Amino acid sequence: MTFLKEYNDFIEKEINAIDLPENPANLYNPLRYFLKLGGKRIRPALTLMAGKMFGVSVEKTKNAALAVEVFHNFTLIHDDIMDNAPLRRNQKTIHEEWNSNIAILAGDVLFVKSYELLGKNADKYLNDLFTIFSKTAREVCEGQQMDMDFETRESVQEADYIEMIRLKTSVLLGCALELGAILGDAKEEDRKNMYEFGIHLGIAFQIQDDILDLFGSPEKVGKQPGGDVICNKKTLLSITATDLAKTSEDQEKIQQLVKEIDLELKVNETRNLYTRLGVRKSCEDKKEFHYNQAIAALNQIPEEFSKYELMNLAHNLFDREY
Amino acid sequence: MTFLKEYNDFIEKEINAIDLPENPANLYNPLRYFLKLGGKRIRPALTLMAGKMFGVSVEKTKNAALAVEVFHNFTLIHDDIMDNAPLRRNQKTIHEEWNSNIAILAGDVLFVKSYELLGKNADKYLNDLFTIFSKTAREVCEGQQMDMDFETRESVQEADYIEMIRLKTSVLLGCALELGAILGDAKEEDRKNMYEFGIHLGIAFQIQDDILDLFGSPEKVGKQPGGDVICNKKTLLSITATDLAKTSEDQEKIQQLVKEIDLELKVNETRNLYTRLGVRKSCEDKKEFHYNQAIAALNQIPEEFSKYELMNLAHNLFDREY
Repeated sequence: MTFLKEYNDFIEKEINAIDLPENPANLYNPLRYFLKLGGKRIRPALTLMAGKMFGVSVEKTKNAALAVEVFHNFTLIHDDIMDNAPLRRNQKTIHEEWNSNIAILAGDVLFVKSYELLGKNADKYLNDLFTIFSKTAREVCEGQQMDMDFETRESVQEADYIEMIRLKTSVLLGCALELGAILGDAKEEDRKNMYEFGIHLGIAFQIQDDILDLFGSPEKVGKQPGGDVICNKKTLLSITATDLAKTSEDQEKIQQLVKEIDLELKVNETRNLYTRLGVRKSCEDKKEFHYNQAIAALNQIPEEFSKYELMNLAHNLFDREY
Repeated sequence: MTFLKEYNDFIEKEINAIDLPENPANLYNPLRYFLKLGGKRIRPALTLMAGKMFGVSVEKTKNAALAVEVFHNFTLIHDDIMDNAPLRRNQKTIHEEWNSNIAILAGDVLFVKSYELLGKNADKYLNDLFTIFSKTAREVCEGQQMDMDFETRESVQEADYIEMIRLKTSVLLGCALELGAILGDAKEEDRKNMYEFGIHLGIAFQIQDDILDLFGSPEKVGKQPGGDVICNKKTLLSITATDLAKTSEDQEKIQQLVKEIDLELKVNETRNLYTRLGVRKSCEDKKEFHYNQAIAALNQIPEEFSKYELMNLAHNLFDREY
């Protein structure tokens, strides 16, 4: 996303400047490797943008922004172990390149580093910063556990699924924004609206991710469609399909597709069924609902604070024209 | 240790009062299970004792004490995964009772909890508390990595071994004491002496642990002797033996004992060789050196602060008469 380039360049530079010791090499080399894998760096950009919105420079918010990005990378390292994922951003994951023990410990020390970065802020902010940061960190763990629990569950309710993605993904976006607002000395009410903006933006984004997995064009999404379907992953699409399948025929069709071993057929027939059941439309509506909630929260904040950048980010994340 | 009973009762009560949510059950049940396994709770007692020494009540230091104990438990959970340990305090480890993924995540959330507990202290202490706590947490990870690295290394230098046990074990004792001193508004110099007391006490204790593994009486130590020898673990004893074996005969004997498959013979002959080489005496001297350094650091602190409890603790840990 080109409009993020200025922030991304700044963040990459700051990430490269994070001071990591040489030894033990088996602890810090994996971290250097992982932090260089890149990524969209949206979370730290949110902190920097939030700070700017409330009138403070990126120099004042950079440590909080880095804390968020470093924490995010810690969760990725541990999630990759739990998911047994071989690749991250087309490169080997730490547990693949080294081993699981090294990946556990590398994640742990990166987690410490996130607190060290956050702790670099002025004393008067520490209580507020640490409170929201720790609450968020705990919730992200809860979201990951819920996600793992869902894998072995027969069925998942929509509300539980939304709660899972709120915890696993959205709270960190909300936290990133609120940290910037705290450092910008924003009022309590404005801080909360920034947080809500992040929460709903995150939920909308995750729903879009679910939709794109099956309905996105391979060129645009950058991967073959249907990955979630192939893995029988519970997503808002599959949950909505179960809810919308009222006839026993459709219910049986869903059961049958879960067991289908011809993967191309499985993906195509699932797509056809979901379209016929109105799953896509229903999910688009839910995405729209959360997107609108996000914008509404942002618009609650007084006009004196320019929302241009965050609005622009929101529009771009959802491929809209501005 | 009966003299710790008063503190232990207080800490158990406080640990049981730690507020953990019900759900996700697969995240929080393992934590409830693990925190109930007990333990000597020496680390939180150090924080409480340090606070009392500088005139503040256990009510003021309890959250820092709990943070230290909770952090310690987090490291145990992750270490148990890395060591593939089936038991902890004669009960199944989390990864055995549940699975590794749950143990990783349970550890992570317990780590967050330690920061949340520390964050309950008054704003004016947060910077100091978080700085030493995060530095310590990072060092404990470094120590664990060094320990893992040593397993596959041909030989380990004594200085590297001492540095490993300083990081893996001692810094958390030093931190526990310094947190109490910070909350007791101790002077910088006194804080540092409390920390040094913990560092040297920890090193001395770990050396004693190494000695007892081979030379302790089974009744007193509570386990069969020679566990480290059987696993060919690098300890101060094995490192000192290598240093003291000057003749090629003794060097070959060490090599031969590493490969010995009759385990009773292996342990007994190792004990005989180590005694003949003066390994035990040399290690006792090193333990004594660090013990004396610990006491010296404590004695640097002005007389107005009573060191009775900490002296008593030190004496008891080393089975001395007071």
